[in-house]
Amino acid sequence: MNNDIRDTLQALKDGKITVDDAVLAIKKQPFEDLGYAKVDHHRKIRQGAAEVIYGAGKTPQQILGIIDSMKKDGVKTILITRLQDDQANIISETCDIKYDQTSRIGIVGEIPEADGIGSIVVATGGTSDIPVAEEAALTAEVHGNKVIRLYDVGVAGLHRLLSHVDELMDAKVVIAIAGMEGALASVIGGLVDCPVIAVPTSVGYGASFGGLSALLSMLNSCASGVSVVNIDNGFGAGYLASMINHRY
Amino acid sequence: MNNDIRDTLQALKDGKITVDDAVLAIKKQPFEDLGYAKVDHHRKIRQGAAEVIYGAGKTPQQILGIIDSMKKDGVKTILITRLQDDQANIISETCDIKYDQTSRIGIVGEIPEADGIGSIVVATGGTSDIPVAEEAALTAEVHGNKVIRLYDVGVAGLHRLLSHVDELMDAKVVIAIAGMEGALASVIGGLVDCPVIAVPTSVGYGASFGGLSALLSMLNSCASGVSVVNIDNGFGAGYLASMINHRY
Amino acid sequence: MNNDIRDTLQALKDGKITVDDAVLAIKKQPFEDLGYAKVDHHRKIRQGAAEVIYGAGKTPQQILGIIDSMKKDGVKTILITRLQDDQANIISETCDIKYDQTSRIGIVGEIPEADGIGSIVVATGGTSDIPVAEEAALTAEVHGNKVIRLYDVGVAGLHRLLSHVDELMDAKVVIAIAGMEGALASVIGGLVDCPVIAVPTSVGYGASFGGLSALLSMLNSCASGVSVVNIDNGFGAGYLASMINHRY
Amino acid sequence: MNNDIRDTLQALKDGKITVDDAVLAIKKQPFEDLGYAKVDHHRKIRQGAAEVIYGAGKTPQQILGIIDSMKKDGVKTILITRLQDDQANIISETCDIKYDQTSRIGIVGEIPEADGIGSIVVATGGTSDIPVAEEAALTAEVHGNKVIRLYDVGVAGLHRLLSHVDELMDAKVVIAIAGMEGALASVIGGLVDCPVIAVPTSVGYGASFGGLSALLSMLNSCASGVSVVNIDNGFGAGYLASMINHRY
Amino acid sequence: MNNDIRDTLQALKDGKITVDDAVLAIKKQPFEDLGYAKVDHHRKIRQGAAEVIYGAGKTPQQILGIIDSMKKDGVKTILITRLQDDQANIISETCDIKYDQTSRIGIVGEIPEADGIGSIVVATGGTSDIPVAEEAALTAEVHGNKVIRLYDVGVAGLHRLLSHVDELMDAKVVIAIAGMEGALASVIGGLVDCPVIAVPTSVGYGASFGGLSALLSMLNSCASGVSVVNIDNGFGAGYLASMINHRY
Amino acid sequence: MNNDIRDTLQALKDGKITVDDAVLAIKKQPFEDLGYAKVDHHRKIRQGAAEVIYGAGKTPQQILGIIDSMKKDGVKTILITRLQDDQANIISETCDIKYDQTSRIGIVGEIPEADGIGSIVVATGGTSDIPVAEEAALTAEVHGNKVIRLYDVGVAGLHRLLSHVDELMDAKVVIAIAGMEGALASVIGGLVDCPVIAVPTSVGYGASFGGLSALLSMLNSCASGVSVVNIDNGFGAGYLASMINHRY
Amino acid sequence: MNNDIRDTLQALKDGKITVDDAVLAIKKQPFEDLGYAKVDHHRKIRQGAAEVIYGAGKTPQQILGIIDSMKKDGVKTILITRLQDDQANIISETCDIKYDQTSRIGIVGEIPEADGIGSIVVATGGTSDIPVAEEAALTAEVHGNKVIRLYDVGVAGLHRLLSHVDELMDAKVVIAIAGMEGALASVIGGLVDCPVIAVPTSVGYGASFGGLSALLSMLNSCASGVSVVNIDNGFGAGYLASMINHRY
Amino acid sequence: MNNDIRDTLQALKDGKITVDDAVLAIKKQPFEDLGYAKVDHHRKIRQGAAEVIYGAGKTPQQILGIIDSMKKDGVKTILITRLQDDQANIISETCDIKYDQTSRIGIVGEIPEADGIGSIVVATGGTSDIPVAEEAALTAEVHGNKVIRLYDVGVAGLHRLLSHVDELMDAKVVIAIAGMEGALASVIGGLVDCPVIAVPTSVGYGASFGGLSALLSMLNSCASGVSVVNIDNGFGAGYLASMINHRY
Repeated sequence: MNNDIRDTLQALKDGKITVDDAVLAIKKQPFEDLGYAKVDHHRKIRQGAAEVIYGAGKTPQQILGIIDSMKKDGVKTILITRLQDDQANIISETCDIKYDQTSRIGIVGEIPEADGIGSIVVATGGTSDIPVAEEAALTAEVHGNKVIRLYDVGVAGLHRLLSHVDELMDAKVVIAIAGMEGALASVIGGLVDCPVIAVPTSVGYGASFGGLSALLSMLNSCASGVSVVNIDNGFGAGYLASMINHRY
Repeated sequence: MNNDIRDTLQALKDGKITVDDAVLAIKKQPFEDLGYAKVDHHRKIRQGAAEVIYGAGKTPQQILGIIDSMKKDGVKTILITRLQDDQANIISETCDIKYDQTSRIGIVGEIPEADGIGSIVVATGGTSDIPVAEEAALTAEVHGNKVIRLYDVGVAGLHRLLSHVDELMDAKVVIAIAGMEGALASVIGGLVDCPVIAVPTSVGYGASFGGLSALLSMLNSCASGVSVVNIDNGFGAGYLASMINHRY
Repeated sequence: MNNDIRDTLQALKDGKITVDDAVLAIKKQPFEDLGYAKVDHHRKIRQGAAEVIYGAGKTPQQILGIIDSMKKDGVKTILITRLQDDQANIISETCDIKYDQTSRIGIVGEIPEADGIGSIVVATGGTSDIPVAEEAALTAEVHGNKVIRLYDVGVAGLHRLLSHVDELMDAKVVIAIAGMEGALASVIGGLVDCPVIAVPTSVGYGASFGGLSALLSMLNSCASGVSVVNIDNGFGAGYLASMINHRY
Repeated sequence: MNNDIRDTLQALKDGKITVDDAVLAIKKQPFEDLGYAKVDHHRKIRQGAAEVIYGAGKTPQQILGIIDSMKKDGVKTILITRLQDDQANIISETCDIKYDQTSRIGIVGEIPEADGIGSIVVATGGTSDIPVAEEAALTAEVHGNKVIRLYDVGVAGLHRLLSHVDELMDAKVVIAIAGMEGALASVIGGLVDCPVIAVPTSVGYGASFGGLSALLSMLNSCASGVSVVNIDNGFGAGYLASMINHRY
Repeated sequence: MNNDIRDTLQALKDGKITVDDAVLAIKKQPFEDLGYAKVDHHRKIRQGAAEVIYGAGKTPQQILGIIDSMKKDGVKTILITRLQDDQANIISETCDIKYDQTSRIGIVGEIPEADGIGSIVVATGGTSDIPVAEEAALTAEVHGNKVIRLYDVGVAGLHRLLSHVDELMDAKVVIAIAGMEGALASVIGGLVDCPVIAVPTSVGYGASFGGLSALLSMLNSCASGVSVVNIDNGFGAGYLASMINHRY
Repeated sequence: MNNDIRDTLQALKDGKITVDDAVLAIKKQPFEDLGYAKVDHHRKIRQGAAEVIYGAGKTPQQILGIIDSMKKDGVKTILITRLQDDQANIISETCDIKYDQTSRIGIVGEIPEADGIGSIVVATGGTSDIPVAEEAALTAEVHGNKVIRLYDVGVAGLHRLLSHVDELMDAKVVIAIAGMEGALASVIGGLVDCPVIAVPTSVGYGASFGGLSALLSMLNSCASGVSVVNIDNGFGAGYLASMINHRY
Repeated sequence: MNNDIRDTLQALKDGKITVDDAVLAIKKQPFEDLGYAKVDHHRKIRQGAAEVIYGAGKTPQQILGIIDSMKKDGVKTILITRLQDDQANIISETCDIKYDQTSRIGIVGEIPEADGIGSIVVATGGTSDIPVAEEAALTAEVHGNKVIRLYDVGVAGLHRLLSHVDELMDAKVVIAIAGMEGALASVIGGLVDCPVIAVPTSVGYGASFGGLSALLSMLNSCASGVSVVNIDNGFGAGYLASMINHRY
Repeated sequence: MNNDIRDTLQALKDGKITVDDAVLAIKKQPFEDLGYAKVDHHRKIRQGAAEVIYGAGKTPQQILGIIDSMKKDGVKTILITRLQDDQANIISETCDIKYDQTSRIGIVGEIPEADGIGSIVVATGGTSDIPVAEEAALTAEVHGNKVIRLYDVGVAGLHRLLSHVDELMDAKVVIAIAGMEGALASVIGGLVDCPVIAVPTSVGYGASFGGLSALLSMLNSCASGVSVVNIDNGFGAGYLASMINHRY
């Protein structure tokens, strides 16, 4: 609750305004002044170093402005998602930014120490799913998680997946990323005993219908503990995985 | 080519009709008299003992009539699909029929010796898929195939499937039957080196959309050698598997 | 790894079989004997008291048989989902079962003490979503979680939801259940700082298309930390929530 | 009813034609001559200053021609929608036009004084929805409405929306514009007591399916007073809002 | 803002509590106490006599309980939608209710005088659309509107519609209800100069896909001033029409 | 143009009313009085003996009433579509009606002599399509057409279709009726040189999606001269075929 | 039936080959030699002057080759559909071709005299539908039909359509072309007494889904005599209209 | 089973490690070491000369690297699918590669002798389907099959297909490739007595919906022995056909 409300109450207490005046003043306060905005403050506190900028549709100048503002607020690490090459180039001229072309992610500041309760496995069905996977993995790392990458372990070559059964069973969360038939989530969901976040990708052609096939497949998973995010939503999966891996 | 054509030609040769008469006569012959109908005859010969009646929408009397007619043609084994209990009961009063309630299949006559080049594995993801699986299995058996049933080996419990890896790898064809996410076809397709016929089933709820989810998943299989038939089409899968298992 | 492998190795060590014999024997072992089946054992151990039976499509006798078998294995609490009235009545004749008509859930044995790291909020948009919500809530309770129910807090009457902002912000997981436009998940996702499991329901008519509208809405949530399970899948949400609430 | 009919009747009265001739003549008149075309005249009169040109697919020359023709008819303000940059540039060479790049709207003449019964709020879920919002807002302004813009007040940050609850509750109509999950319409519909026109946008990716998700969500709104126009149809919403705001 | 807040402020003014106490107390108040709940109160006041009960899924006893409670609150007219025959029969035993079988609507109390600014036309394409139309018409009447019914004026017999062009052009709102191809909304939208609320119905077969065809058709209307509600949502259309017809 | 208009004109001619009065009177006439209703009269005249009642959703009493009214208007033959057994039984008690259970069609009066320019072939892919086919065939016959039925000539047994190539090539219109893959329309369209009206049926299961598969297949026909009506719309096909067969 | 068959029969008659030889020879003849290919010859004869080349995906050289070949066969008029500007330019260097940019149609030779039984009306809802309309109109003209164009007569401005009611009622076939809500076909179908061929177009945006909305709307037309061709299929509609207009 | 396992067992036999050590060692072995990887080895052995590289999304350098590695492994023939012109050009600079522009296939090494049990027919509906067909045909040839190409034999010109009935009936497998209505698979399925692999293509426009129409049509085929692969999946069909043609 910010100072305005407190000031109002003090004024009331001091007899400078009437109860009716105070009622009116409180009623007119924007919602966030009334305490519900603690939601956001709470979030900032918990996440500590990392803040996120959605880069798509913003000019490099706008992004630089937000970075400056965040730095002044003490944010130590900034994650920029869906950032194009040319945006990144311009930003890098005046700002120290690490840019990963595969995932289209830019990072300003240091990636923090992993402080989650365990590791997050990011697994993909094929190599074409890697851009989405890296978006998930970097998002998780920037939020303080140890990430283990198991790429190209699709169910059509089961031995590749099974040779990593130990990493899978040690994970606190698994992010299963696949296009086409999306079977990876179910198979992993049957192997592990932790939450599995399934990310359908738009990889495929024909009857994959832009990721619809993988999406439906994952929603119908007969394995317990599997839930699904939007097609190609690597960021959402990485962020949710970090949440789960930071329970306390 | 039937006798009418031969008669026409003989009449021409014997000078009883002119060339123009013969041209006209041949032109007026129905298509099947012209030799293309060998398609059907060929089929009957090869399939030997087994003929199929689609039971749905037929009265018991109609079915009995067809059975009689087939028996007179020397058909040794008759498969009746989509046959209801009450139809079967009435038929059984005047005809020696074996009826399987699960698959809704009735069989008249003996199941022939298996004479395929190997075995057909019929695998299901869950127990609810068994009616479709039995339709496939009995169809294959009636057409002279050895069938191995692997039921409830869904991908969420991979060890159940993998404990049968030997039967799978010995098969000449595998029929993979699953609803929900339909991942079974891809996993089996990755394990075996023979054709996999995928049958999506309408088992499931919500986003399974009556089998659409499993159908799309199977069509997008990243494993080679997998093809798909219609939702719940156990008969089609069993018939095609028998075709493949009888190559010569 | 079971005794058969150990016996084989002992026999090798004892010189009773050759290395080649041992290789062959190991190769022939079913998969679960080779250690990977620890998956299931692990799961049993962790889950302790609670096991789940999917009641749909099973006869009361089959369910009673599974209950007996589970009890012999030392299972203290058994959850039976999708159980019909008449099934429950027959089961209750020979077995002490608590049956909840709303959620169609039966429970054998005691609901364990809540031992999760916090509480799980189960929120619904309307009263018609309650059957799915109770399936989720009872599933979570049976697996040792404290559950807070916030029913009929749909977004069209925002004050009802906001009056419970404290319970929401205290939760370790929120299950947001809604049909029709499914907006509840996004609104809650914006308020809280914990994972939100969204469950679309088939409640609605017309353009709700059996839950499709709510499903798509939830998948497109612009709030971070939201993931989605299948339409009407209360059990899946409750089970996943328990997993997240038991991280350690 | 135009002069031709009147002439016919006069001729009949004057005895120059017979009743049968008159019947025939009337029957042959095109429909608009018979009075029904008043529809359009009525519309022109009411809308007074503003006429609309749909710019897409027209050459700058065609648009200029229509503008000229309208000006001659006494139209004071002309709204041109879906106008591209290059079209606008050419038009501006010979015509005084205000062009707004965001909404792709061109305006010739003055925006009239607001004469509606109250204000129209145009609210968007995100910043990417602003082009559609500006199309709606400018359309409403050109038709004589006071417009209040509340942009980027999506439901995932409820406090932003709620801090504007006074503007919302003062509005006579609200246009709620959102892509992705489209929840904004329901939340606003629950807050206000006036008609809400929901505009789904094609903003989003993956399972937003080009605006389908938002569209279905809005159609299923559980809030009363909400109706929906086509995806990205800012013009339609602004026009309808003006209609409602000009009831008399 | 209710008395609790006022009491708190008075206590602060009286020096009975500190500013910190007051801040805490205000923060803990449920949302509706803070003034935002005026939304609902506002609605009640404006709507005066009429309140709505959604009858589907409620027992007659539950409905009776709500009726009693509403009557005590001074509600003069109660509209019950989606009420079945048998529910209505039981309710009518202890409560004076008018029940309309076609629309499945029950009304308790008197229908108020029409006090809108004009008339509402409810038009249908065919006779099968009448149940939805009556739901809309009765809803509008119960909320104080004069309703003109134009049933069975589908576009395939244009003269039927055009013979009512005067009623249409006099209306302040038109509700256009149609299944199958849903063209009625566009044709009426082109004739009139007032808002048209389009209601697609599930009337039809085959490619009508449960109302989807009419829904899409109405969303794509090329006539200005048309907006759409959910399939078969007569209540929503009637309620919105009343809102528009009561602008002041 | 009815007497009211003529009376008005006579009154004008007689000097009893002014031109202004006449203009007003004409403007106020309902649309059908102005001559456009000739549409319907024209239709009645041309169709001569046959009128159509859509039986679904009408009581036997309502149908009897319409029959009486039509008979008084001199209609010789009445076609009643979508008529249920029990409706037909009641009607037959007081009215001489021929009822065909397969097509659910009732006919009152005599089927007229065929007076079209040629024959209409009605072809079906399977026996399950016959109810739709009979609706088409009887509709065509009642409107004065010679109909040739070719049932169960689906493309999977091409010789059956080709043995009727002469009837097909003699036809003036072919109605091709099929469910499942709907290939019949394309194959016939390639054989014949007359318009082919394709009727998809809801026959099938799984991925036939209630006729959608056949519908799309027919719309994509690569044969020229093929057009499509709604799923199961036998009446529409029969009526259109009669139109084409009566060109003059 | 070609000479090969006749030669075979003559040889048989002459005793040069045996009956068995003749049977074998006939069996081996390609299908078209057996008389069924009269289909194509028949078509060529009837269509006289006009042949069609589908230009898409063909090189100018390939098209020129086909034109040469057709000219040698005596074809007087050649219609080339889906022809691009650049293709047309190259073709026009060595061949006298009329190219219409709007419809992307090229015509070689003279458009024949109209010899149909009446006129064909081609009507469009908007100006954006004109390319499809011109494809239909030119196709019809090239096949010997008088075509009347009624463009931009969409149902949202009914008087424009109704002012042409005479042309419509005189037509032997109407082609109704519309995108968006596709209502034009139903309205025209209700006005006229001749076959209406509905052509949905991909004109529109948002929920028009590439023409799906118009397609469904047209398939569900409640007007009799309406049938539908594929989205944007102007050629198919023009060709079918010509068929109907040339019945004899 | 590789040497590590064998070494472990030898060490156990030699008394160098204990049984417990051996259990642990075996448990830790990656899955492929345990014998299940024979799947892959088996595949390599059987396929002999041919290995496959999926070219899409790989750089020429990556492809060259894989080619080198395969050659060192003794692979005689390498098939590269979905290879672009520019990729092929770069590869051809340092590697002897045959590139087929139509199918976008590159082949390194010799195409082996055909050693299947019979021939594979690859049939297409139109000329636009040829790229998919060539992908299928070359895939089959590279895996040792005799391929017969029947292109442009669509069902709208049945005589073209039927003139090749002998090649069809001699085939051991037929690959039926078609877009638009996809009827080819059913017609061929009715003619032949061998497995038919149906490949829907994305050829078409409007209601073909990118191949969906052909896909559904093929899934609903009423001919036995037909199964379906993904849209445009020529490789999958060719590979499966080779499997079936190499049964032994």
